[in-house]
Amino acid sequence: MSNTADLGFIGLAVMGRNLVMNMTDHDIAVAVYNRTPERTDEFLSAEAAGTAVVGTHSIEDLVSTLDRPRIVMMMIKAGRPVDDQIEALIPLLERGDIIIDGGNSRFVDTERRTERLSDLGIRFVGMGISGGEDGARFGPSIMPGGNVSAWPEISSIFTAIAAKADGEACAEWIGPGGAGHYVKMVHNGIEYGDMQVIAEAYDVMRRGLGLNPPQMAPIFERWNAGRLDSFLIEITARIMRATDEDGTPLLDRVLDAAGQKGTGKWTVVASMEQAVPTTLVAEAVYARVVSALADERVGASQVLSGPRETTLDDDEQVISDLEDAVYASKIVSYAQGFMLFDAASRDYGWHLDPAVIASLWRAGCIIRSRFLNDITRAYRSDDDVTNLLTEPFFAGALADAEPGWRRTVARAVTAGIPVPAYASALSFYDGYRSERLPANLIQAQRDLFGAHTYERVDRPRGRFFHSDWRP
Amino acid sequence: MSNTADLGFIGLAVMGRNLVMNMTDHDIAVAVYNRTPERTDEFLSAEAAGTAVVGTHSIEDLVSTLDRPRIVMMMIKAGRPVDDQIEALIPLLERGDIIIDGGNSRFVDTERRTERLSDLGIRFVGMGISGGEDGARFGPSIMPGGNVSAWPEISSIFTAIAAKADGEACAEWIGPGGAGHYVKMVHNGIEYGDMQVIAEAYDVMRRGLGLNPPQMAPIFERWNAGRLDSFLIEITARIMRATDEDGTPLLDRVLDAAGQKGTGKWTVVASMEQAVPTTLVAEAVYARVVSALADERVGASQVLSGPRETTLDDDEQVISDLEDAVYASKIVSYAQGFMLFDAASRDYGWHLDPAVIASLWRAGCIIRSRFLNDITRAYRSDDDVTNLLTEPFFAGALADAEPGWRRTVARAVTAGIPVPAYASALSFYDGYRSERLPANLIQAQRDLFGAHTYERVDRPRGRFFHSDWRP
Repeated sequence: MSNTADLGFIGLAVMGRNLVMNMTDHDIAVAVYNRTPERTDEFLSAEAAGTAVVGTHSIEDLVSTLDRPRIVMMMIKAGRPVDDQIEALIPLLERGDIIIDGGNSRFVDTERRTERLSDLGIRFVGMGISGGEDGARFGPSIMPGGNVSAWPEISSIFTAIAAKADGEACAEWIGPGGAGHYVKMVHNGIEYGDMQVIAEAYDVMRRGLGLNPPQMAPIFERWNAGRLDSFLIEITARIMRATDEDGTPLLDRVLDAAGQKGTGKWTVVASMEQAVPTTLVAEAVYARVVSALADERVGASQVLSGPRETTLDDDEQVISDLEDAVYASKIVSYAQGFMLFDAASRDYGWHLDPAVIASLWRAGCIIRSRFLNDITRAYRSDDDVTNLLTEPFFAGALADAEPGWRRTVARAVTAGIPVPAYASALSFYDGYRSERLPANLIQAQRDLFGAHTYERVDRPRGRFFHSDWRP
Repeated sequence: MSNTADLGFIGLAVMGRNLVMNMTDHDIAVAVYNRTPERTDEFLSAEAAGTAVVGTHSIEDLVSTLDRPRIVMMMIKAGRPVDDQIEALIPLLERGDIIIDGGNSRFVDTERRTERLSDLGIRFVGMGISGGEDGARFGPSIMPGGNVSAWPEISSIFTAIAAKADGEACAEWIGPGGAGHYVKMVHNGIEYGDMQVIAEAYDVMRRGLGLNPPQMAPIFERWNAGRLDSFLIEITARIMRATDEDGTPLLDRVLDAAGQKGTGKWTVVASMEQAVPTTLVAEAVYARVVSALADERVGASQVLSGPRETTLDDDEQVISDLEDAVYASKIVSYAQGFMLFDAASRDYGWHLDPAVIASLWRAGCIIRSRFLNDITRAYRSDDDVTNLLTEPFFAGALADAEPGWRRTVARAVTAGIPVPAYASALSFYDGYRSERLPANLIQAQRDLFGAHTYERVDRPRGRFFHSDWRP
């Protein structure tokens, strides 16, 4: 075999195949390998037929097609398979070669792998890729991290295949070690939040207003033409119009038990490690868990009481307030996500640039939205953002949306319709803007039963007091 | 030295000293050791003066005072110090000897230590102890786990010093490996929740009704005489009456920035590992985090808008509804905690007995309450509880409390007073009692952008479908 390929690609499931086709569209010469050779052959005789893609049946053959430094990209199941694949590649590679892991690996694994391979002189890149099947095929959002010296060698490939926002490629270096996979993890956590926020709007319209999916379609379409313009709102409108074979809305046939693959949970775990209140992601993850208890819920619905009246009046106001609730909750969720980046960046020494992260999410990925342009603008125009919430644009947007958001939560709570994301986001908002919170009582309790001591409002921070709390 | 002590005790910080004094009260012969010998001497010349407590200045001396099988208990800082102490003890001990770790160790560490020591023939017990200083001194709640064969050797000591509830000692074997520390961890998570639930009542009365601490004291005292009868409500009433030197309520002088030591966060991490929705603990942990951003909050309070009117009408109704909110939120939180036990027990093969756990918490510990009698009764009378919420007693209690709980949340949301725990508990309740949740939309979205497939309401579970979602 002659040394002709620009990149060797391992893993031909749907995301991998689409990424390879995307590269091929951009005249990148790709050699491919899959553990099951039949899948390689099938790919070459299907969408890759007539292209320059080279199929191989062993990783030795795959590596032999590559010029130095060799670039090998994996798109395989996260966890043990990635380690196994790396171990199999090591004897075939030389100093300066590059391994890219494009899967949803845990950032701690990526940290470890970057370090181990660095010791061998091999450059490792943990690359977050978002966009689903279509993004992979026509332009995803790409979040690479790891060994920074690898980026100049691979950036032309990934900026070529990435989505474009305002003419800028949505592929930019994130930071060292596991920074790329960390940002992708939080992206997915925020995606959980965005989806829950939309699901609650659907639920309020379904249960509260008695609307059916086709009746909701134009509402989501209208929202998608305004400040909520985003991929997820757009596909929600599409879903509302989709029908089953008999003409019934297909959505009504889908079981209400949500699955999850882990990145949402990992985001919550990371938020605990950093002590950052990503409440909306947590509630979204928990809401999926509750949904998955489908049989238990059916039983509980017979036993647990709720309000007699669940129908809401004044459809127009309810819908307009819902749009406010969706928008305000999203602002809170993104603000929380960027608080997590800020803390993690300091903890791990990554020097994450929030403007870069926001800009990468403007196109290609699942959470792409007009709204991310506003976040990008906020971070680009102010080097020292304390919190997105208090940036003028978002503080103003929240002031506008706040009354409708409050009415939505109060109305849903009264009607017995669960809105964990809206309610949690609003609690956070009201907590964050509270000059005084009741945590003084918690400190007093801790001091009383455990002598944990407390600080005082009339003394400098860092001085600790203990009382016996006798009246 | 003659072999005379029943138990060798390492670590003479306040919890350790109080446990030793408690043992001494029950004629248990204790030898003590502390890393800093001055502390040992000081203890022997202070509260231990005139008792049978034997002081030692080396662990060799400590061990030499013990009959076989030797029982050595540590009450030292969790983490590395526990490992170091174990390594130092190993050469001094023999097969069959027992090491007890009474600190707040992570359950995974306890799993590991139990296994390592078991290989050496040494029996390890990871023992959760709750009750704060007073509990340690006069009767804590004790949750031991690890090497089960150790329990008959040590049970007489710990049932003697434990709190008593209805004549039963609050010390009972929990399960193998890290089970004891796991249960203690969740106990602490629930404690975070209970404290947040009370703090929200204080905040609504403070901001919404303009009450000051002395005005709130009789309200908490009244609550403590009813269904909310508990240690934490009792001490809250006490705190409301405590004054600073100048007569000002001391609570008003305490800084509203809550600390935390980790067990709340660990509970949330465990809930993610088990996919169990302990939403109230999570919101309580996050609320402490938000409180700790004290300076940021002061800045945000100038920028972020809220309702003009925060004053609530009809004090009596507000207070009565608040009591409902506290009670209902607590029921939800405990139900969530026991869901976590159920999942962890199956995952780790621990065979946890919820009736035992509830019974241990009835007295001695920080979360002790009348309410735990009801939980104990529910689990003792029904071997097959699906969920506490749907047990007749609690389903009835929730039906009674639900309207006031809803009014409390709606009122607080409208007034801009954060009630993350009440709101999250109510969202969970309404989600759990929903025959249909909007997760069908989430599944449709995931299928559309990621081909994750979905189940259908008109097909058996376990069959997965994919659609192209074109209208």
